Amino acid sequence: MAFDRLIENIIQKQNPTVAGLDPKLEYVPASIKNACFEKYGKTLEGAAAALLEFNKAIIDQIYDIVPAIKPQAAYYEMYGWQGVKALADTIAYAKSKGMFVMTDGKRNDIGTTMEAYAAAHLGVTDVAGESVEAFGADALTVNGYLGSDGIRPLLNICKAEDKGIFVLVKTSNPSSGELQDMKLENGVSVYEQMGRMCEGWGEELPGKYGYSGVGAVVGATYPEQLKEMREKAPHTFFLVPGYGAQGGGAEDAKFAFDKNGFGAIINSSRGIMCAWKKQGLTEEDFAAAAGVEALRMKEDILSVIGEIKA
Amino acid sequence: MAFDRLIENIIQKQNPTVAGLDPKLEYVPASIKNACFEKYGKTLEGAAAALLEFNKAIIDQIYDIVPAIKPQAAYYEMYGWQGVKALADTIAYAKSKGMFVMTDGKRNDIGTTMEAYAAAHLGVTDVAGESVEAFGADALTVNGYLGSDGIRPLLNICKAEDKGIFVLVKTSNPSSGELQDMKLENGVSVYEQMGRMCEGWGEELPGKYGYSGVGAVVGATYPEQLKEMREKAPHTFFLVPGYGAQGGGAEDAKFAFDKNGFGAIINSSRGIMCAWKKQGLTEEDFAAAAGVEALRMKEDILSVIGEIKA
Repeated sequence: MAFDRLIENIIQKQNPTVAGLDPKLEYVPASIKNACFEKYGKTLEGAAAALLEFNKAIIDQIYDIVPAIKPQAAYYEMYGWQGVKALADTIAYAKSKGMFVMTDGKRNDIGTTMEAYAAAHLGVTDVAGESVEAFGADALTVNGYLGSDGIRPLLNICKAEDKGIFVLVKTSNPSSGELQDMKLENGVSVYEQMGRMCEGWGEELPGKYGYSGVGAVVGATYPEQLKEMREKAPHTFFLVPGYGAQGGGAEDAKFAFDKNGFGAIINSSRGIMCAWKKQGLTEEDFAAAAGVEALRMKEDILSVIGEIKA
Repeated sequence: MAFDRLIENIIQKQNPTVAGLDPKLEYVPASIKNACFEKYGKTLEGAAAALLEFNKAIIDQIYDIVPAIKPQAAYYEMYGWQGVKALADTIAYAKSKGMFVMTDGKRNDIGTTMEAYAAAHLGVTDVAGESVEAFGADALTVNGYLGSDGIRPLLNICKAEDKGIFVLVKTSNPSSGELQDMKLENGVSVYEQMGRMCEGWGEELPGKYGYSGVGAVVGATYPEQLKEMREKAPHTFFLVPGYGAQGGGAEDAKFAFDKNGFGAIINSSRGIMCAWKKQGLTEEDFAAAAGVEALRMKEDILSVIGEIKA
């Protein structure tokens, strides 16, 4: 089961964190940008080449510290198909370094269409008898608004290909409560209902550490709800955004973990990518600074949850 | 306002329908596939080239009958970045033929990330001072589970660039009710609450035909809810999937329209793309068959709603 692999990677590195690779061109230092623009012009191709160089330099610094990366699809799509190619190349590079890759795409659709997304991001595509991997991540974030038949094709591929999903439950943004916090007639909030659905779907993908292959996104910016959901969804592994730039700290994130330090992985994106700013370095030092920040973040989280015991 | 443009296209063609371009390689006839595989091999590149030829042939047959196309992002992503390039090329081709393009991506994320999706699909991307269009559709489907700050960047771009969005309200799939039909404490269903949010967001993008730039996806497979939402969301333009292959008919879809025949556009995907099967033709006749089906569908819808009056 895919999250068993992730948990083993977390134990081995004693680091329950994931580096969000959501690169904007403005984060990329001039030396990389200039070289790429010289080669390809100020084009989407040039921008995408720069993003890929930036990502690879960060991965080189962190792959032996951090167990996973989470590229955010939006930041690649904004650079067109050329950016989407950089996403595919980033995923392949991180996997070649032994990292677990979770594509943050928040995909959702009806069953037949979800089969296509599942094949795209987690499975293989049939091209006249040839099986080809399109993006090949280990896990994908998804939105469960459409219910079970939009999740079913993912479960099938997770089983067949040893992959996992994270369903949006309680998101980290300021307005997440507008719908998610509303109470249903049965007294349960919309996000708790979504958490229940995750527990149900997860029954088909049990894992040996007690967590299923159906995870949930629960933001560190809402520690009360994080604590509540850790209790109410005991078999659901959490992907926790909102640490760092969005305002959540280790004291908030700690509620995502069980007593063994399992059950969650904490994401930092801008905190890692733009670490040089906080460290008083220049943009050309972005990769080394990312490595230093990855270590600092690991220590910060471990300081509140203690050793992660198998 | 973008949906004014769409409505004027609908009036001019007397056709409130949209052709869903969700091509799978299995829909593409052997002559096109063989030519592309000969050139590129049985690769994602070969598959993507075949999809693009297939789409262009259909667009050539329908662009003077049908006002809009709706490419579904999933069916391009499953063929990798090469497929995503075919999506961009399909959008550009349909626009060159005067069609309104709505990308069905059901994108959703927190505010800062939604800015990236909005730039990708509806706006422009800044590449070191050059403004480049990445995909450049006229409208995008989105999922409102994250609330207002995930919608705000789209409203800004819709205003600045004359674009529109469709928010998932009541989807056409069998399990859509699992969450969407649940009643909230205030007595309102989750889908109705989402419809209310659409009406609120739409106030910022008023249109001259009474419909705002914030539309909603409401399935023809749930005619009761379609009728209910037409009354409860009077300024919200509906994108209606579920006609044809999914089981909805014109008698179901009619509830989406107001008395002038405004207020909705009905989608057919497989019905158009695979029309040759129903017409007893061969796969090589797919494009002509799609044109015949587009005309039949137009007449079918008009037979229940009557003339569309400006």
